Amino acid sequence: MEKPQNGEEKEETTASFCGYDSLHRLLKDNLNPHHFQEVSRLLTGLNCGKALEAVSLPESATSLSAEHGFDIQAFSFCADKELLREPRIVRVGLIQNSIVLPTTAHFADQKKAIFEKLKPIIEAAGSSGVNVLCLQEAWMMPFAFCTREKRWCEFAEPVDGESTKFLQSFALKYNMVIVSPILERDINHGEVIWNTAVVIGNHGNIIGKHRKNHIPRVGDFNESTYYMEGNTGHPVFETAFGKIAINICYGRHHPLNWLAFGLNGAEIVFNPSATVGELSEPMWPIEARNAAIANSYFVASINRVGTETFPNQFTSGDGKPAHADFGHFYGSSYVSAPDASCTPSLSRNRDGLLVTDMDLNLCRQVKDKWGFRMTSRYELYADTLARYVKPDFEPQVTSDPLLHRKSL
Amino acid sequence: MEKPQNGEEKEETTASFCGYDSLHRLLKDNLNPHHFQEVSRLLTGLNCGKALEAVSLPESATSLSAEHGFDIQAFSFCADKELLREPRIVRVGLIQNSIVLPTTAHFADQKKAIFEKLKPIIEAAGSSGVNVLCLQEAWMMPFAFCTREKRWCEFAEPVDGESTKFLQSFALKYNMVIVSPILERDINHGEVIWNTAVVIGNHGNIIGKHRKNHIPRVGDFNESTYYMEGNTGHPVFETAFGKIAINICYGRHHPLNWLAFGLNGAEIVFNPSATVGELSEPMWPIEARNAAIANSYFVASINRVGTETFPNQFTSGDGKPAHADFGHFYGSSYVSAPDASCTPSLSRNRDGLLVTDMDLNLCRQVKDKWGFRMTSRYELYADTLARYVKPDFEPQVTSDPLLHRKSL
Repeated sequence: MEKPQNGEEKEETTASFCGYDSLHRLLKDNLNPHHFQEVSRLLTGLNCGKALEAVSLPESATSLSAEHGFDIQAFSFCADKELLREPRIVRVGLIQNSIVLPTTAHFADQKKAIFEKLKPIIEAAGSSGVNVLCLQEAWMMPFAFCTREKRWCEFAEPVDGESTKFLQSFALKYNMVIVSPILERDINHGEVIWNTAVVIGNHGNIIGKHRKNHIPRVGDFNESTYYMEGNTGHPVFETAFGKIAINICYGRHHPLNWLAFGLNGAEIVFNPSATVGELSEPMWPIEARNAAIANSYFVASINRVGTETFPNQFTSGDGKPAHADFGHFYGSSYVSAPDASCTPSLSRNRDGLLVTDMDLNLCRQVKDKWGFRMTSRYELYADTLARYVKPDFEPQVTSDPLLHRKSL
Repeated sequence: MEKPQNGEEKEETTASFCGYDSLHRLLKDNLNPHHFQEVSRLLTGLNCGKALEAVSLPESATSLSAEHGFDIQAFSFCADKELLREPRIVRVGLIQNSIVLPTTAHFADQKKAIFEKLKPIIEAAGSSGVNVLCLQEAWMMPFAFCTREKRWCEFAEPVDGESTKFLQSFALKYNMVIVSPILERDINHGEVIWNTAVVIGNHGNIIGKHRKNHIPRVGDFNESTYYMEGNTGHPVFETAFGKIAINICYGRHHPLNWLAFGLNGAEIVFNPSATVGELSEPMWPIEARNAAIANSYFVASINRVGTETFPNQFTSGDGKPAHADFGHFYGSSYVSAPDASCTPSLSRNRDGLLVTDMDLNLCRQVKDKWGFRMTSRYELYADTLARYVKPDFEPQVTSDPLLHRKSL
């Protein structure tokens, strides 16, 4: 049994990017400015013909970053001016973080230590004027579902539990909507467990909740013994700062999940995640950007950071040796815009706060320009899916009648 | 009126990548090998823990490339060995090309010149042992739909017209399936026009056709006055070398279109396109890869190359000056795999042939590993879409009850 080593990240999992903590920084430091500009044009898109603008944050925020050692970055997307609507600029904050104490510590202490670590990062967001803040998936606990042990369910809380209360005070203090992804204990329905995002309004009130729609069964990501597919549909929450929705973690692999939030009118979809390098890192820059493009909304992607080591070893059922950690959560939180542009990513190794200004008017502007919603032929696909879900569905296949004829 | 200038590409549209003709080549020449490897890991994914393998092509192919000045590149994806199935390795070829004669030349001469230009590239594919070859969208003509002039419809042909006949001889000679995207004249239905891909079997027979499902109405990409949304559904063609489908151009922006080809069992989906830099280049590396990931199949993306200038100026209805060209078609054809890896792209300036070996067994392997099909909850979305298409659909929105309360 390995000794828990939280906080000490393993060399082999974090050495990527050759000592740089983001792809963006590696490229910026090693390409000449002209080359870097061209590469950025393709990798992060262009908006209104110019690069994303970096935004200055108040000293109150940057000093917290320096003092507590978290990455802080801020950017602004632009949109066209309209004649009949004022700009609807929303400042969005994303927080990624590692856990604090070893997973062998008392559960109450582990949770409290995460609260304490998050305070200055949330303060930095609040003092930066963030309007809507989102934390990572199951932020109030280690991501222990890889262990398949049920004792970690003790971390679960009702929607109005201590984690929500902790965040409500900040929501009220900073007039800030906060999306809080937790492990939920549903007291009113037999104490079952859900993977849930609680939406806290800018007055500190609870607006509602959404439960993760798609549950992975992938190696150590087999979470299906902890919670079931969500029963909350695809709610869009109309907040003081725009219409938001939450696509939790594995749901980002499902284009229909992204689509349904779009059909319900989302302007920003958060994707709080917990995912590790070897498995998903090449997918990370793709899926959220595609969702933003296809659905004409902003996507804010958050991934936790660090390696979490558990007291008892477990296997992935893949023939490989038992192990005590899940791999390296690579952070790299970022925001994608409907016009195919995106921000650079936060660090893949450190805690971080990403602040992004976005004019929500861009969503409709892109809809009008590209017309994806209008040209989507939903009737055709409603019919296709209705036929597909029947057990006797026959795929539309045209076989070459000469399929089995030998070539001359 | 500008003088047509086909063949002379305009400086401002092709100068991207600082003289390099692909992102991959710029990065390879300007980063040290260790940095390049790390950047490639994220940008093109890894398969089986190692990089894509470059493949050697026969001298008969490379000498044609040298003689006729087209880019030629070849790669191989890998898959796991299985116990009960042999590998099903298919060699796929993609051709991108510019037109040859000025658009003012006689239409018959323009088409003939394209045939002549393509011959050595198709010969290179055939002599490389390509099993399935796909050409670019409307390959037998300039992409004249930006002009809104109807005389270009003269290029249209029935499914068994001269372009098909031209390719049938190569299909037979090289035992090669060929996907031929043309402008179709539907003689049997009132001579209407379609944007169609003809699938030619490896015995030179016509297996079937598919008509473009989603028609753009985007600036100069307004093709909706030439042809309507396709009426052929989402056919998958069972050929001697796997189950293939064709998602023509603008259909790549529609996740449901990709999905339906997957539901019908496609293992390779071709995306023959004609798209220009300013509008879509940041989307190009995203959408096809996302489709490959989400649907557990290979995607082969082709874009034409060069700038095509027309005799009469036209506008995009965007307040900008009238112009005689559509912009620079940036080539950059590439292949995406279901495990999130992809090949480097062909040149953004030159004609090219991309040859890729793929073991189709990878599709099911990824399905079993990631389980996207299994966890997709299609019943939920069949219901969502059935409700959405009704005129009285009400989105699922939860409004903050304190939405209009002033902050303290």
